[in-house]
Amino acid sequence: MTISRDLSSLPAVGIAVIGYGYWGPNLVRNFAKTEGARIVSISDLDPAKLASATRAYPGIGQTTDFRALLDDDRVDAVAIATPVRTHYQLALAALEAGKHVLVEKPLAETSAQVRHLMAEAQRRNVVLMVDHTFIYTPAVRKIRELIGEQVLGDIYYYESTRASLGLFQSDVNVIWDLAVHDISIIQYIMNDTPLAVSATAVSHVAGNPENIAHIALFFRSSCVAHISVNWLSPVKVRQTFIGGSRKMILYDDLESTEKVKVYDKGVTVSVSAESVNQLRIGYRAGDTWSPHLPAKEALETEAEHFVDCIRRGKMPLSDGASGLRVIEILEAAGKSIAAQGTPIPIEQPAQHRLYEGVA
Amino acid sequence: MTISRDLSSLPAVGIAVIGYGYWGPNLVRNFAKTEGARIVSISDLDPAKLASATRAYPGIGQTTDFRALLDDDRVDAVAIATPVRTHYQLALAALEAGKHVLVEKPLAETSAQVRHLMAEAQRRNVVLMVDHTFIYTPAVRKIRELIGEQVLGDIYYYESTRASLGLFQSDVNVIWDLAVHDISIIQYIMNDTPLAVSATAVSHVAGNPENIAHIALFFRSSCVAHISVNWLSPVKVRQTFIGGSRKMILYDDLESTEKVKVYDKGVTVSVSAESVNQLRIGYRAGDTWSPHLPAKEALETEAEHFVDCIRRGKMPLSDGASGLRVIEILEAAGKSIAAQGTPIPIEQPAQHRLYEGVA
Amino acid sequence: MTISRDLSSLPAVGIAVIGYGYWGPNLVRNFAKTEGARIVSISDLDPAKLASATRAYPGIGQTTDFRALLDDDRVDAVAIATPVRTHYQLALAALEAGKHVLVEKPLAETSAQVRHLMAEAQRRNVVLMVDHTFIYTPAVRKIRELIGEQVLGDIYYYESTRASLGLFQSDVNVIWDLAVHDISIIQYIMNDTPLAVSATAVSHVAGNPENIAHIALFFRSSCVAHISVNWLSPVKVRQTFIGGSRKMILYDDLESTEKVKVYDKGVTVSVSAESVNQLRIGYRAGDTWSPHLPAKEALETEAEHFVDCIRRGKMPLSDGASGLRVIEILEAAGKSIAAQGTPIPIEQPAQHRLYEGVA
Amino acid sequence: MTISRDLSSLPAVGIAVIGYGYWGPNLVRNFAKTEGARIVSISDLDPAKLASATRAYPGIGQTTDFRALLDDDRVDAVAIATPVRTHYQLALAALEAGKHVLVEKPLAETSAQVRHLMAEAQRRNVVLMVDHTFIYTPAVRKIRELIGEQVLGDIYYYESTRASLGLFQSDVNVIWDLAVHDISIIQYIMNDTPLAVSATAVSHVAGNPENIAHIALFFRSSCVAHISVNWLSPVKVRQTFIGGSRKMILYDDLESTEKVKVYDKGVTVSVSAESVNQLRIGYRAGDTWSPHLPAKEALETEAEHFVDCIRRGKMPLSDGASGLRVIEILEAAGKSIAAQGTPIPIEQPAQHRLYEGVA
Repeated sequence: MTISRDLSSLPAVGIAVIGYGYWGPNLVRNFAKTEGARIVSISDLDPAKLASATRAYPGIGQTTDFRALLDDDRVDAVAIATPVRTHYQLALAALEAGKHVLVEKPLAETSAQVRHLMAEAQRRNVVLMVDHTFIYTPAVRKIRELIGEQVLGDIYYYESTRASLGLFQSDVNVIWDLAVHDISIIQYIMNDTPLAVSATAVSHVAGNPENIAHIALFFRSSCVAHISVNWLSPVKVRQTFIGGSRKMILYDDLESTEKVKVYDKGVTVSVSAESVNQLRIGYRAGDTWSPHLPAKEALETEAEHFVDCIRRGKMPLSDGASGLRVIEILEAAGKSIAAQGTPIPIEQPAQHRLYEGVA
Repeated sequence: MTISRDLSSLPAVGIAVIGYGYWGPNLVRNFAKTEGARIVSISDLDPAKLASATRAYPGIGQTTDFRALLDDDRVDAVAIATPVRTHYQLALAALEAGKHVLVEKPLAETSAQVRHLMAEAQRRNVVLMVDHTFIYTPAVRKIRELIGEQVLGDIYYYESTRASLGLFQSDVNVIWDLAVHDISIIQYIMNDTPLAVSATAVSHVAGNPENIAHIALFFRSSCVAHISVNWLSPVKVRQTFIGGSRKMILYDDLESTEKVKVYDKGVTVSVSAESVNQLRIGYRAGDTWSPHLPAKEALETEAEHFVDCIRRGKMPLSDGASGLRVIEILEAAGKSIAAQGTPIPIEQPAQHRLYEGVA
Repeated sequence: MTISRDLSSLPAVGIAVIGYGYWGPNLVRNFAKTEGARIVSISDLDPAKLASATRAYPGIGQTTDFRALLDDDRVDAVAIATPVRTHYQLALAALEAGKHVLVEKPLAETSAQVRHLMAEAQRRNVVLMVDHTFIYTPAVRKIRELIGEQVLGDIYYYESTRASLGLFQSDVNVIWDLAVHDISIIQYIMNDTPLAVSATAVSHVAGNPENIAHIALFFRSSCVAHISVNWLSPVKVRQTFIGGSRKMILYDDLESTEKVKVYDKGVTVSVSAESVNQLRIGYRAGDTWSPHLPAKEALETEAEHFVDCIRRGKMPLSDGASGLRVIEILEAAGKSIAAQGTPIPIEQPAQHRLYEGVA
Repeated sequence: MTISRDLSSLPAVGIAVIGYGYWGPNLVRNFAKTEGARIVSISDLDPAKLASATRAYPGIGQTTDFRALLDDDRVDAVAIATPVRTHYQLALAALEAGKHVLVEKPLAETSAQVRHLMAEAQRRNVVLMVDHTFIYTPAVRKIRELIGEQVLGDIYYYESTRASLGLFQSDVNVIWDLAVHDISIIQYIMNDTPLAVSATAVSHVAGNPENIAHIALFFRSSCVAHISVNWLSPVKVRQTFIGGSRKMILYDDLESTEKVKVYDKGVTVSVSAESVNQLRIGYRAGDTWSPHLPAKEALETEAEHFVDCIRRGKMPLSDGASGLRVIEILEAAGKSIAAQGTPIPIEQPAQHRLYEGVA
């Protein structure tokens, strides 16, 4: 994200961060080093968390009342990192106060809420962005680039596993916590919306949201996406296989250096010598290649992008519409889970906006 | 498998092997070293394959006509390792000829065929056994033992991935080739039959059987099993996670030495101090332990067991009934695939036979 | 490290940190959270580094002149994290000013310097401690415990590899940077001093210190230690094998969860049935076990230990004497390198102080 | 190894294999499928081993007296896979009988013996070849090719570890068993002979040869080779790092698919802006690449090469001279071990023959 020089004379964008629990400190840390941004204040209901924020960032204001931030003229934008059930109300209040808004994923609890937020952002002419972190990672961007350049050929499948021990959340189930990453990645790298979803899930703690789930997404093409998520795994897994007609990818986010591997492997299909009705399947294996990826933290790229969109009046890559499509899929998956895997159709967007690359 | 001494005076069981392609040589190699067995003859339609059998085992007879084996009085039992579509006819003919029969998995193409074979075996009073290899592996036996001793506590989930590049089969899809292993393992280690199945699958070679599939099995308990199989993966994967309330297992069949790892990890649930309506979830992590497993090849154990069942008139561990239940699940999965994941109920066995351990 | 309650009424130990480059920020971060410590000031020659310290810790004083710290009565102790060539002078000045001193490894450039520092610390009755971080890690402490409890039996070997790309240092070679860790670990877990050392090394950047080296340490027993260090490796390696007569350990510091694995493997020796002059060697393989390790950061334990030693007037675990023995071995290794591996005897300590465990 | 068509009309080379223990069966299996070869007979002192050979290869003659083979006119060549202490006498007798000879590594117990064998082979005008298996592997050949094409730039180091539990040998120590592989690989890929060797080793079974050893080889260039071998390791390791000025390689022989990885990593050296006397070292990281390797077994290539050399009267790649240089290094290493690492010079070959590639 290069910011052209003439922006440097503009006043810095004043940022307030609401929620200083697990993710909030990461937002503060990254906005603190973003050129063109200035953190004005931090809000959290818990004074102990505010105290720890003060130790680390003593020059920054703090409050337990987020409304104080909305009344503060120095605050141009708010970044919301609170429990999911509070996203809608906080984001709506901020938009109504004319603030630009960045919301941690998922954007809200329902697609109706997201539509409402989108309408409000449009009416106020402010930026509404959702924190789909993975589409700002060097690994996912490289994968999108390879797919875009037809390196993989036709995409046959996307197979992803996200598993670890914890953190069980009380207000959303495991697909709203973990599968949301894959759904935003799929959208970003494939530029396509699935036609239907089949999902199954189960809870192993009575009265708690489902902690293990599987989602299958069906597309117009023969591509199928499958996502396996688990809060109760003895080992952490973050693995995605992407199969194409020309090449295949293994993306392992836990690898320190070779996160993305490209395999020149696949099958070849030819008509059998014995019978035109019979196909002969051959196997092809070539070199393996792992592209070097820059070390830049995704959230840093994302913070820069948010500030840039505010300054230039641009739509962000992960805008309300992309957040909406993710949530529509999560809602459909929820219906399929209730029906033990029965497929549920997905509403198709009127017009499919193509993602544009972020510099 | 200890064979008591008084059996040693019995004449050796004469074995014929039908099919000398991929799996047949393994059968021959293992029966050749099984005490109490003697390989009489090998049959294959392809003279080139028979020639290679002769090079390795020159004293053994051979024929391109399996019927010659059935007419041969020296043949007490046949082991069938041919394409799936031929299993039923070959097995039926062998049973009708009064031979004991071992069939490569899956036992037949339909549950109706299996019922027919079971009836015929009972009528002839001969052994009918299906080659569910994995339940004879030291790893799976150790897992069953740990579950039986309540080391894992309540079983929460079974999550398995079997993926590799190839071998595409022309007469069955990937679940009949690979998921069949997991279904037989689940049956063996959990001693339970699922109530329903939801499955999805897709083919990437036009006109060919599905090469990628996912299966969810629902049980009476909160346990859920999920099986992911793929003939089009850039890397080979054979990984099974089994989560329990007390401990969790990672079984990786590609590991040379630590195939089974037992993790003392999990969640603890307690009532929150703040509210009796709120549960507090804690995380627990202890030592990891990998039991030493004997190096004995599964097929060797299986060959001994087949011979022992013939000599003692015992039911094999992987008998017709266990083969039947596997195929009933595969059939239900096929129906669910046709309906894009809609759950299909599974016929419940009248009486649930418990597996008995093999010495 | 438990600090008994009656210490809590004492005034906090005032700490100054000299050097805010690579390691200094870690010292500040850990002393900042150490009960009974208070960071008074930070010193660095580079104003830019001090500025970054101020951003993170605004309440803490700063100076580019370390002498100002020594004149400051609020400073009871200094922690030195500067280039090795400056250790001696800085530490000596601090001791002479009556400050307790913690020095990053290696303690100084020569054993003569270390002896001088030890004498000065004794004269002033202050604590002199060297930052041998690894002996404060849960992994190394667990290994020491297992060896102490005779779980491994007689120790046969210690084989360690530390390799990565960079960081080339200009004032010390790779053994003073990386092998120093192993030498301090060996001392700590084996409570023994080697008799002699053979080492080889080479530099691949003309005029620069050696970037790749191997060290063999010979002990009174048949135990041999070997250390391989490399600044020019394409992948990072931190692996130590420890072989014993009863069990063997693989300690991989890059593993996130199973850093220490204990293998029940080894050889058995028996007299051959054929000849009393011939030994029969058998192989033994049992379970593998990975003990759960607490997640506490080593430097946090170390900071607490330093403060506790100051308050209680105790000798630290990694005192001047342990730093001295490490440097005597490094010096002997240097001589052996100059002679292409010719063995150099190591001065034996008059009395071998046993390490005492840290609570 | 392509054999040109006009050879196919020649009579097959008659092969006898002496020794049917661990390695002998591999020789038989590979010569059995080598075009232009015919196994005539197998010899072993142990009738039980001969019996097992007969079961597998019934058409092949057998004898417990190797002299019978030497008198047999059908035997053109012998392949020797017996304990090291017998290599010299068996090979010499075979050469004297006019047979071509392939000997398992190491070629003999002393360099004097090797010289004697070489002279005898020259006198009789027969082929003398040593079984340095690794130089016939696709992985090592690819590495040699990459080095030859200057892909790695100047070679900085060769770092190899070969460790496992067993097999302890009674007549040679671990370097004659395992390091011999690395020494032959180094010779083959670097086409250079070291100037000196420093080695250390220790035995943990009283009265038995050393079971753990380290060898450093010094070259004219700044390249250093280091070999670590261990018969008493809890896990099997076969890892070689090769560092070059342009690229670096990790060769892991236990990897099933990515045995050779090429890293575009290294350091850059530039003169510091501050001082012409100061060098600035930078770090460079690019893509990683793993070339696809053919699946052909090394011993198959080797068997073909032996037969081809016999038929064409060519010198084999791993001829007596290459075996001699390996043993001279092993002898020097032995002297260094006796002197605890003191460097021992290596005799330089009068003329350094360059290895020629094998098709």
